[in-house]
Amino acid sequence: MGPQISPQIIGSTFAAMTTAGKVIRCKAAVAWGLSQPLVMEEIEVAPPKEREVRIKIVATTVCHTDLYFLREKSSSEGFPAVLGHEGAGIVESVGPGVSRLKAGDRVIPLFVSQCGECRFCLHPETNHCNMNWSSQRPGKRYDVGSDTTSRMKCKGQTLLQFMGTSTFSEYTVVNETAVAKIPDSAPLDKMCLLGCGVSTGYGAAINTAKVKPGSSCAVFGLGAVGLAAVMGCKAAGATRIIAVDINEVKFEKAKLFGATEFINPRDHSKPIQQVLAGMTDGGVDFSLECTGNVDVMRSALESCVKGWGVSVVVGYTDTHDVCTRPLQLLSGRTWKGSLFGGYKSVESVPKLVDDYMANKLKLDEFVSHTLPLDSINEAFDLLVQGKSIRTVLKLSTGH
Amino acid sequence: MGPQISPQIIGSTFAAMTTAGKVIRCKAAVAWGLSQPLVMEEIEVAPPKEREVRIKIVATTVCHTDLYFLREKSSSEGFPAVLGHEGAGIVESVGPGVSRLKAGDRVIPLFVSQCGECRFCLHPETNHCNMNWSSQRPGKRYDVGSDTTSRMKCKGQTLLQFMGTSTFSEYTVVNETAVAKIPDSAPLDKMCLLGCGVSTGYGAAINTAKVKPGSSCAVFGLGAVGLAAVMGCKAAGATRIIAVDINEVKFEKAKLFGATEFINPRDHSKPIQQVLAGMTDGGVDFSLECTGNVDVMRSALESCVKGWGVSVVVGYTDTHDVCTRPLQLLSGRTWKGSLFGGYKSVESVPKLVDDYMANKLKLDEFVSHTLPLDSINEAFDLLVQGKSIRTVLKLSTGH
Repeated sequence: MGPQISPQIIGSTFAAMTTAGKVIRCKAAVAWGLSQPLVMEEIEVAPPKEREVRIKIVATTVCHTDLYFLREKSSSEGFPAVLGHEGAGIVESVGPGVSRLKAGDRVIPLFVSQCGECRFCLHPETNHCNMNWSSQRPGKRYDVGSDTTSRMKCKGQTLLQFMGTSTFSEYTVVNETAVAKIPDSAPLDKMCLLGCGVSTGYGAAINTAKVKPGSSCAVFGLGAVGLAAVMGCKAAGATRIIAVDINEVKFEKAKLFGATEFINPRDHSKPIQQVLAGMTDGGVDFSLECTGNVDVMRSALESCVKGWGVSVVVGYTDTHDVCTRPLQLLSGRTWKGSLFGGYKSVESVPKLVDDYMANKLKLDEFVSHTLPLDSINEAFDLLVQGKSIRTVLKLSTGH
Repeated sequence: MGPQISPQIIGSTFAAMTTAGKVIRCKAAVAWGLSQPLVMEEIEVAPPKEREVRIKIVATTVCHTDLYFLREKSSSEGFPAVLGHEGAGIVESVGPGVSRLKAGDRVIPLFVSQCGECRFCLHPETNHCNMNWSSQRPGKRYDVGSDTTSRMKCKGQTLLQFMGTSTFSEYTVVNETAVAKIPDSAPLDKMCLLGCGVSTGYGAAINTAKVKPGSSCAVFGLGAVGLAAVMGCKAAGATRIIAVDINEVKFEKAKLFGATEFINPRDHSKPIQQVLAGMTDGGVDFSLECTGNVDVMRSALESCVKGWGVSVVVGYTDTHDVCTRPLQLLSGRTWKGSLFGGYKSVESVPKLVDDYMANKLKLDEFVSHTLPLDSINEAFDLLVQGKSIRTVLKLSTGH
């Protein structure tokens, strides 16, 4: 899996001092077009510009949002691109003006930035930094204080840096406001999970839903995000955690993370919201939608109890409207959404790492498969088939 | 406007001691069918049963929700009925088991009950008492600890008691859990406004949206509920209160209640959410939808700033879905609904009366017209035509 080496090429096996300031040629999984399999290519990764950091990716995983943008996005303007937003690695070099990070630092690239300066970063109740990729056109990388261009090229074409992270590459360049520094002792093949799914689900329960001790919760969808939401509900002290999925294979894993009851909607002729209302004297206190399906989002809201029920949309989609009857809101339900679990990213991810190192947060249990980056299409297939929770793709060994 | 008197009829001009325990014949505006004008009829009002209170209505007003159920409700099962849920009056007699209220007490009937015993009443964050009419079929009156029948009849037919209040009648019977006791000095022709619209809009801003000092707010729809929401935003310390309506005649009134800016969406080619985003660097902190139109509900949500914007649905409708893109929620907006301003009714309405008596809450300014109950269809017309804020219908004089 090491990069090719030729007189013109600076390979990843060289020390940082050797590669700094130079273009690196390395392997990456390139998405050339909508719904096409990724292709392993040799790409060129330019040196970091001002306030940017070039990272050697050690491990990455495949998330449903990668799949969504590869296969379901109606627009085709997001290609060619390097996808991937759950990764961990080591800083190879830093651009001008970067003082918080240095070559050799272990890091997690973040698809939600924390510039620390915008009015959103300064506001205590949100993590929607105004500099993150979603403020730009999806598929474009953002760039604070510099330009909005990519640092990646292949065969003369510019590769869009998906979510500003592009972790399906041996090297990537990320803005320093979107990098969390983590301890040297942290295992990078687990740390990558904190780049999206686990943090997203766990934080959605704790920070966005603000699950209360003794409450009842329903979690819809038991992928990595949903399982992390179950874990978050448990950490917050929920008494009943009802796990909902049409794939019953997931129930055993859900139990491991704290689920107390399990429902397959296909076992019932009534709508799932009526089933849950019957089980909970009118509805759950909190529900978390972790599938990215607008019908499930509606069910999750309507599964909440009137008066104080809170439903959080965690799964991502933007191709269809989500709907409900106004009376569902007028009856006292609250509808919210959660991005990256509501965590202010740069400052919070290291705390999650600490929790993992102190055995307060499970990560190992999310890893169902381990493959080399070359097998990334297989990892996508496992996700589509519901056979994997997370497949960790290893890009280099010894870390 | 006094009731007819005959040897068989116990009229309202008799003292309470005379009428207690007997059927009262009096005038009421009866809704015989969908979209039909109300008809003044002589009806029979039975004595209050256990835990019920019979009230002599002194003044009532017409609210959009009466109109909604009369003209827009697709179901026709709600007739014949006596509508009306904004009223004030005097207790004529009480049924067995009623100790909190007695004949002669001045009261406001409430369409949201507060039994004080259900898990919703005991929960600090909701006013959705499990005993209120909305827990039953709309158009039916509820009844705590007794039956769910009506106390009203006309020409041998049972009249449904709309929202459990039926204030378009000289006498009505209400459950004691849905009656607020107010001071003798309170003017009933103003107090009736606290039965719905003013409390609903004012509380939606203060209790449900929890508008913060220094914030920016947008209020959609400047009927009585919207104007009260403007007043609530001001009371909560909002710096910018943007009043939105297609009827510019309302702007002057909105200014009186505290609005700082005024927008007619028809003056703009862009969607109103884009207009507001342009005025407020991305959107308002809080928005309140006070029209009962699902398209406006969507606009109100999408007019909020990402990250922390809160939108509250206040207007009532249940015939269409309300929709948005999931990204609107994922971007950090919160969608809520408000019933009766979030006020726990029995205990809160007397405090609002105190605020009015202390000149801290405007009520007189909502009254645009005063008519006798006989002219109720004219009052409906004025509302439909956007010519009235509130028309107070007086049922008897001297109070």
